[in-house]
Amino acid sequence: MSTLKIAIQGGPASFHDVVAQQYFVGKTTEIVPCMTFQRVCAAVKNRDADFGVMAIENALAGSILGNYSLLQDYPVSIIGEAYLPIEQNLLALPGQSLSDIKLVRSHPMALLQCTNFLEENPHIQALESADTAESAREIRENNLVGVGAIASKLAAERYQLEIVEERVENYKENYTRFMIISRKPLADKSQANKASVIFTLHHRAGELAKILDVFRDLNINLSLIQSIPILSQPTEFAILLDLEWEDYSTFEESISLVTPLIVEMKILGIYQRGKR
Amino acid sequence: MSTLKIAIQGGPASFHDVVAQQYFVGKTTEIVPCMTFQRVCAAVKNRDADFGVMAIENALAGSILGNYSLLQDYPVSIIGEAYLPIEQNLLALPGQSLSDIKLVRSHPMALLQCTNFLEENPHIQALESADTAESAREIRENNLVGVGAIASKLAAERYQLEIVEERVENYKENYTRFMIISRKPLADKSQANKASVIFTLHHRAGELAKILDVFRDLNINLSLIQSIPILSQPTEFAILLDLEWEDYSTFEESISLVTPLIVEMKILGIYQRGKR
Repeated sequence: MSTLKIAIQGGPASFHDVVAQQYFVGKTTEIVPCMTFQRVCAAVKNRDADFGVMAIENALAGSILGNYSLLQDYPVSIIGEAYLPIEQNLLALPGQSLSDIKLVRSHPMALLQCTNFLEENPHIQALESADTAESAREIRENNLVGVGAIASKLAAERYQLEIVEERVENYKENYTRFMIISRKPLADKSQANKASVIFTLHHRAGELAKILDVFRDLNINLSLIQSIPILSQPTEFAILLDLEWEDYSTFEESISLVTPLIVEMKILGIYQRGKR
Repeated sequence: MSTLKIAIQGGPASFHDVVAQQYFVGKTTEIVPCMTFQRVCAAVKNRDADFGVMAIENALAGSILGNYSLLQDYPVSIIGEAYLPIEQNLLALPGQSLSDIKLVRSHPMALLQCTNFLEENPHIQALESADTAESAREIRENNLVGVGAIASKLAAERYQLEIVEERVENYKENYTRFMIISRKPLADKSQANKASVIFTLHHRAGELAKILDVFRDLNINLSLIQSIPILSQPTEFAILLDLEWEDYSTFEESISLVTPLIVEMKILGIYQRGKR
């Protein structure tokens, strides 16, 4: 079996790596670590990777709009999605207690997910880094005493760090949603029951209602809706929709009915719903 | 004339201060600096301030969902809005060039707005701080050579720093939207032409379409729509809407027509549209 190359944001033992291992379970995979989301898309585009894994939404913080821009700009397509519960932990070199930790490094999004913990521990200063797991690796490699990383348990295992404090995230029910991307759209649509699309609409009352009527009449459910300002064209706005259906032919029909009602449309991908 | 106390996130010369000065121009005001958005809401609630100023949305990054939660949880009401173009600058002690700056401090959101500049200058490490203008103040107070702050020109003036690099934000057309909040809703609705509301809906096809039909029929425009997952009730979702009208009575009518169609509703505020 040939090895699948999977571009992820971050390095080994990052949350993107956890998702890649779960999504491609049973396949032989090789991780292509990328420092930014843009590089994930570029790696897929340039054939440095077969697939990419990219966080797209956090239940509490909302959509990562910049990543939707990347999905519009790069010649890639969403072919799957995955949900990962958010579980953050404070890791450090063994033998230290919470009061020994003066500085914590992690990805900005992970730090935002742990603001309550950081506020309850004002003796700890937060420092942004490029990746949760990289922060753990640096502590091990440079033998950093008094420094913690906010990262996964997988990162603790991988870099032999101790879990000083478990589950330091603000909200236990929070999750991150990830997109699996590829150069080509999903070929076999028989299992597909979800799509992500972006429409551009004239900014006037009723345009959106007409479109939602089409989906309602075909019994297509909306699991996400979000308007996005278009900075260069203030009289238009873009609308991002996640649509879910039982029968793929109803989705095809809805798209043909909606097309005359809108300015522009891009289907970001047609795929199978991920399990929560 | 009595002095109005205005709670803002951040300190003097922060972007929130800029908005407060512009919005309350002609009035005698006193700033109540707050370290977090939660403290802004608490200051208004506890009568430590008459009004609060709170960022709610960035055109590119999207809504600050956490602040919508605060608006739902605290007994405060939106009574106005303001838009501020995003202009970030790299400030430092006078006499230094870009290559002298090894570390940059700023608010996480400001750092996110300048990722291109930071990526083009890998010799600079970014460090999160509580506030853009505070970062400028610390450089001046502690005479920090080799350290920069990403902040407003007002902060450069106030703390006698030099602008090492002007306009380091990624997107020149980007703006931040701010809400002006008070303990009481706006009393005189005659000038009001906009509202922010949150509905809770049953998560099934067509619920939202029915509601948008009501607004369409009354010629009420939608300037923002965004679904928000409800973690504790996965079968429902909340939807955030900004509505705009010409005639206030049509808004009143729409609310009475929509109420039977939804699970729950909260009007976050009724106010006059801000100028872009």
